[in-house]
Amino acid sequence: MARPSWETEDLSALREMARAFCEKEVAPNTERYIEQHHVDRDLWNKAGELGLLCMSIPEEYGGGGGTFAHEAVLIEEQARVVDSAWGQSLHNGIVAHYILAYGSEEQKKTWLPKMASGEVVGAIAMTEPGTGSDLQNIKTKAVKDGDDYVIDGSKTFITNGGQADLVIVVVKTDTSEGAKGISLVLVETERDGFSRGRILDKVGMRGQDTAELNFSGVRIPQSNLLGDSEGLGFIQLMTQLPQERLIIAVASVAGMEVALEKTLAYTKERTAFGKPVFAFQNTKFKLAEVATEAHVARVFLDDCMEKHLRGQLDIPTVAMAKWWTTERAMQVADTCLQLFGGYGYMNEYPIARMWADNRVQMIYGGTNEIMKEIISRAL
Amino acid sequence: MARPSWETEDLSALREMARAFCEKEVAPNTERYIEQHHVDRDLWNKAGELGLLCMSIPEEYGGGGGTFAHEAVLIEEQARVVDSAWGQSLHNGIVAHYILAYGSEEQKKTWLPKMASGEVVGAIAMTEPGTGSDLQNIKTKAVKDGDDYVIDGSKTFITNGGQADLVIVVVKTDTSEGAKGISLVLVETERDGFSRGRILDKVGMRGQDTAELNFSGVRIPQSNLLGDSEGLGFIQLMTQLPQERLIIAVASVAGMEVALEKTLAYTKERTAFGKPVFAFQNTKFKLAEVATEAHVARVFLDDCMEKHLRGQLDIPTVAMAKWWTTERAMQVADTCLQLFGGYGYMNEYPIARMWADNRVQMIYGGTNEIMKEIISRAL
Amino acid sequence: MARPSWETEDLSALREMARAFCEKEVAPNTERYIEQHHVDRDLWNKAGELGLLCMSIPEEYGGGGGTFAHEAVLIEEQARVVDSAWGQSLHNGIVAHYILAYGSEEQKKTWLPKMASGEVVGAIAMTEPGTGSDLQNIKTKAVKDGDDYVIDGSKTFITNGGQADLVIVVVKTDTSEGAKGISLVLVETERDGFSRGRILDKVGMRGQDTAELNFSGVRIPQSNLLGDSEGLGFIQLMTQLPQERLIIAVASVAGMEVALEKTLAYTKERTAFGKPVFAFQNTKFKLAEVATEAHVARVFLDDCMEKHLRGQLDIPTVAMAKWWTTERAMQVADTCLQLFGGYGYMNEYPIARMWADNRVQMIYGGTNEIMKEIISRAL
Amino acid sequence: MARPSWETEDLSALREMARAFCEKEVAPNTERYIEQHHVDRDLWNKAGELGLLCMSIPEEYGGGGGTFAHEAVLIEEQARVVDSAWGQSLHNGIVAHYILAYGSEEQKKTWLPKMASGEVVGAIAMTEPGTGSDLQNIKTKAVKDGDDYVIDGSKTFITNGGQADLVIVVVKTDTSEGAKGISLVLVETERDGFSRGRILDKVGMRGQDTAELNFSGVRIPQSNLLGDSEGLGFIQLMTQLPQERLIIAVASVAGMEVALEKTLAYTKERTAFGKPVFAFQNTKFKLAEVATEAHVARVFLDDCMEKHLRGQLDIPTVAMAKWWTTERAMQVADTCLQLFGGYGYMNEYPIARMWADNRVQMIYGGTNEIMKEIISRAL
Repeated sequence: MARPSWETEDLSALREMARAFCEKEVAPNTERYIEQHHVDRDLWNKAGELGLLCMSIPEEYGGGGGTFAHEAVLIEEQARVVDSAWGQSLHNGIVAHYILAYGSEEQKKTWLPKMASGEVVGAIAMTEPGTGSDLQNIKTKAVKDGDDYVIDGSKTFITNGGQADLVIVVVKTDTSEGAKGISLVLVETERDGFSRGRILDKVGMRGQDTAELNFSGVRIPQSNLLGDSEGLGFIQLMTQLPQERLIIAVASVAGMEVALEKTLAYTKERTAFGKPVFAFQNTKFKLAEVATEAHVARVFLDDCMEKHLRGQLDIPTVAMAKWWTTERAMQVADTCLQLFGGYGYMNEYPIARMWADNRVQMIYGGTNEIMKEIISRAL
Repeated sequence: MARPSWETEDLSALREMARAFCEKEVAPNTERYIEQHHVDRDLWNKAGELGLLCMSIPEEYGGGGGTFAHEAVLIEEQARVVDSAWGQSLHNGIVAHYILAYGSEEQKKTWLPKMASGEVVGAIAMTEPGTGSDLQNIKTKAVKDGDDYVIDGSKTFITNGGQADLVIVVVKTDTSEGAKGISLVLVETERDGFSRGRILDKVGMRGQDTAELNFSGVRIPQSNLLGDSEGLGFIQLMTQLPQERLIIAVASVAGMEVALEKTLAYTKERTAFGKPVFAFQNTKFKLAEVATEAHVARVFLDDCMEKHLRGQLDIPTVAMAKWWTTERAMQVADTCLQLFGGYGYMNEYPIARMWADNRVQMIYGGTNEIMKEIISRAL
Repeated sequence: MARPSWETEDLSALREMARAFCEKEVAPNTERYIEQHHVDRDLWNKAGELGLLCMSIPEEYGGGGGTFAHEAVLIEEQARVVDSAWGQSLHNGIVAHYILAYGSEEQKKTWLPKMASGEVVGAIAMTEPGTGSDLQNIKTKAVKDGDDYVIDGSKTFITNGGQADLVIVVVKTDTSEGAKGISLVLVETERDGFSRGRILDKVGMRGQDTAELNFSGVRIPQSNLLGDSEGLGFIQLMTQLPQERLIIAVASVAGMEVALEKTLAYTKERTAFGKPVFAFQNTKFKLAEVATEAHVARVFLDDCMEKHLRGQLDIPTVAMAKWWTTERAMQVADTCLQLFGGYGYMNEYPIARMWADNRVQMIYGGTNEIMKEIISRAL
Repeated sequence: MARPSWETEDLSALREMARAFCEKEVAPNTERYIEQHHVDRDLWNKAGELGLLCMSIPEEYGGGGGTFAHEAVLIEEQARVVDSAWGQSLHNGIVAHYILAYGSEEQKKTWLPKMASGEVVGAIAMTEPGTGSDLQNIKTKAVKDGDDYVIDGSKTFITNGGQADLVIVVVKTDTSEGAKGISLVLVETERDGFSRGRILDKVGMRGQDTAELNFSGVRIPQSNLLGDSEGLGFIQLMTQLPQERLIIAVASVAGMEVALEKTLAYTKERTAFGKPVFAFQNTKFKLAEVATEAHVARVFLDDCMEKHLRGQLDIPTVAMAKWWTTERAMQVADTCLQLFGGYGYMNEYPIARMWADNRVQMIYGGTNEIMKEIISRAL
């Protein structure tokens, strides 16, 4: 993997540390994470101790004072060891940033330092069993009762759902409205009436504790509202989604590079019919195509990264990055898997896990179809 | 699913019985099979009792006296309930037919009735850890010693490997030769020196007990050789592989039809943005494409079936059927999965399992690349 | 090209004659037809003399008394010589059949014998400059005036437009209605007020005299209405379109077979880097794919043909045949062209013309998008 | 079209002038160029007068003293008016640069000012009827005779072949060698024994005077050798080919942007079934995909441009740019053509010409297969 265009010396140093951490603390445990369907709880604390959590949160709130580039480095290094169990990118790149962007000073002081240390694991609950990408039609509601909100509803596909201590929940504070009725609230998972459903049995990303969450008369103080007033939730989501989508693109592109690297190594070492698999023209052409797409995707991603770091990445462009890199990453994983023959189908080979992991990236963070809708509106 | 062109009334009656069996005995247990990575041993016996095993083996050997069409009906009905755990098509359509075609009268009398009753489960061991589709270079050898052969070597990716009582093993009886040194021998799994490795952890087909098998000084009588003399193994394999590949095509095409059916049902019932998912033009076009490819594949498969039933299906044509139907089936599953959104990634939805199951069909039975080699040689 | 499943001995004899005709009368002139943008007028008469026109029209109307299979043989043989200049399939398979199906006895007696002899060349005018596949919104109108209709409007993309003596024109007889206002009328091109626009300059099919037609106060007797009453046009079109679409599929599949044959010959004879182009694995795999798709398409087409000959080919299935075979034929031509290198781009090589010719098949006869709409409605 | 990242103010000013020139001098004549299969000879002179030729050649040789960026601007502006008749990019970006890089001072002083003024049109003759991308096996030879070379052989697919005054000819100066026997020589087209074959009849790029050239005992002085000694030709070609390939990529990416722009305009204005074609979800998704690929390609190209301007564009990366942008441009043109319906097939619509023009870009400058070979060697 070539050094990205936006990687400063500072970031290269971070990369070394992140790589060492992933190789020492994550990679040796990934198989076990998959069996147990969650990472070890203390992985978060270890990462927090090393300063690998909340790197893009200001130091005054316990963060690293860095930028999204710091987050991207960790995402890439996690991708290098082909771990999809650890939901750090959601915790760091998404949940913490909702609190930073919309939280009151007290909320920020309360939660961000704990998220940076790993004491608190964060999640965000948008999707419901009955809604997919159609957030305006959610049913979970928060009803005012005295100084509290009382929350009822169900959420599904919640990354970090099994371990989360704090969940940003997308609710309707006004059920008579669509987008304007949506608000975000902070729910501590120790609240009465909160319960976790089973860990979902997924095709891939099997080490992640993706879960259903149930809210049955969960009472939270009104001060847990995120933002100055009710009804801002939809705008808050629209504002944060681009970074979420860029995170997916970062992981996809790094994944393409890793897939290429591993497949080159395999096809050069493995022989068939008396010569290395790489020596066959079909292999060479397929890998030339993979190498090209990985390179093109890297150049495109780096351009998006640079724009995002300057605050200039617009919504249609990040939608392009999301659908295109996830689709190409899936195609790359598929092509590479085939070159491994039967071993490509065995989970002990990372290419097998990458193939199954990649598939969901075309769906979550807004399906690729939604991305095309977004792009077409800007044409 | 329309009735295939080759389906006689007799076969329609069988289909009803096979469907009932799959719905009652297989489908309710598939999830458990996946957890335990093998079917219940007595599923074989229950099927045997009903006459669903060895249907295309002559009655004199305990079989049903039917044709490959009978096997195809059971394969299709198993596909309908989206079960990939039960390795019946290998047992019935492949292993039993090696014995029927090349076995001595004694071998046939000994093994086929037990395979038909379910008392004996069969497997065939070709691939080795160091070889993929390149059978001429296998290392497992059978060395004559007195009246015996002594077998040493390892095999991998063996369907039914965990439960098999009888394994046809591809060995080198003359290690100085390539194809001409290859023979097939019958190995009872109770023999000393035989051991099973772990059940392989696969991306899909997780209910199947695919395993590694190890042979360490396994001693079998020379009468366990399959065929009149040594060195016939390669030809025997070449002769039987077409039916193996047709089995894969039958499963793929039935899978396409099932995927279409399930996705139509889902997209018509599920709503998004206030209307059924099916009402969106993208959904309609994608499903029109899926329906077309499923239909074209069905017509093509039925033509292959009819040729095979007449003994006229040639090797290049079945290679076409294998690569083309497995590739289209994978594409269809992928398109359909996407239309399920996040649920398409959850194993409780059959489309998710189909997607993961289908992938290996492009690899086993000879990779799709090998199929193209075979076709090109005939051009 | 293998003999199609529906080809009887009678049809094989016809094929020989059709082949001889195409090789002797068509192929040597194709290049000139392209330059002049139309076939020689007497090609029609020569074909008529040999009985190659209106073969599927009953003998009592001067036709050959055959079936659509006879037409298909001629279409295939024309495809074999890679001629797209001669618009015979429209004349024989479409125009004559509108008259046969909906014409009065007098109309049939008047026109069909002349179409069978080549004295009259037929065309059908549907599309207008302002409408594509949306026939309900055509503007050309036929207004009753005494015993006549007076026709005003413009039509475009009219195959045989330059040579046609008789044009079936789709008109609105009631402009206040949509589909119900549509009628078909016969317009002799010698009528006052009729004029031909320029021959359209197309990407491919450059030997065809595709033209714009203008109707400015063209007066025809009301007896030129096709059908018993006004307003039947839309149903008439819907009824005949399947055969039109099947004609396109026949040409596409034959084209795939021809492309394969020519590319095999070229790549086996042409050398690069010291060996035949065919010896490269990329070439072999591409041609194995082409051969597979050509074979699958042939099996599918033959199944459609057999259904059509029995009167059982339904509209959604022929829509499948139309979009799928035209898309695959285009892909096949594209793959083959590339294997010719620079020569593939030279019009003197048939593969170049096939590539350019094929493209319009995805558009005319109803765009492939319309086909998907039709299929989805039946799901 | 957004302003490329490498476009300075100086280049923006040039762009305005180039655009005005293309719109005034080129676009109105493109149709006529196509009919006559060559541009007007004085187009070269007019461009020379304005300083649009040899912009990247130093001023001391009559050039503009600019960089490749200047050439790229003109290529893009020519693409904007969808003209492929004028072979300026070959003249400016390739032929002149061979002379600049390898010519003697006298050769440079003689030829470059005339190429800059348009007095001399340049071409380069590599491919032979019997060789495609396999340059080592060319047959055209230059045999020493006194102070001269005597050249015999044939070349084909020569851009500017009809108008060229000066041709760089790839010859064998030592027929006993492969690559080492290759040299480049300058041949003035007024020499005895030189003749032009017919203008080739191509699928697209029909306004270009692509021709065969014949050399029958053509006598040139040995001082017409390009480079200090014989046998350097292969290295010279390898060194210049990257810029040739980048030129193709520049044209392809600009073409994608133009196709998108024109198709957006068309689909928004054109109605079908009562609403704009753009309002259909299929249209929106297709154009969202096109817009994404055009954007990704632009970012990738600009990165290549910046590297090339710094002298850092390596051969495998430019091979990636060549195959990937040409393949995507072809796909984009194909998708867009379809959205025009029947009009997309009419040459009066630029999208039709773009589709046919684009196809050759996957072949010339080294086929896309050769590009994949080059890339694979670097993996």
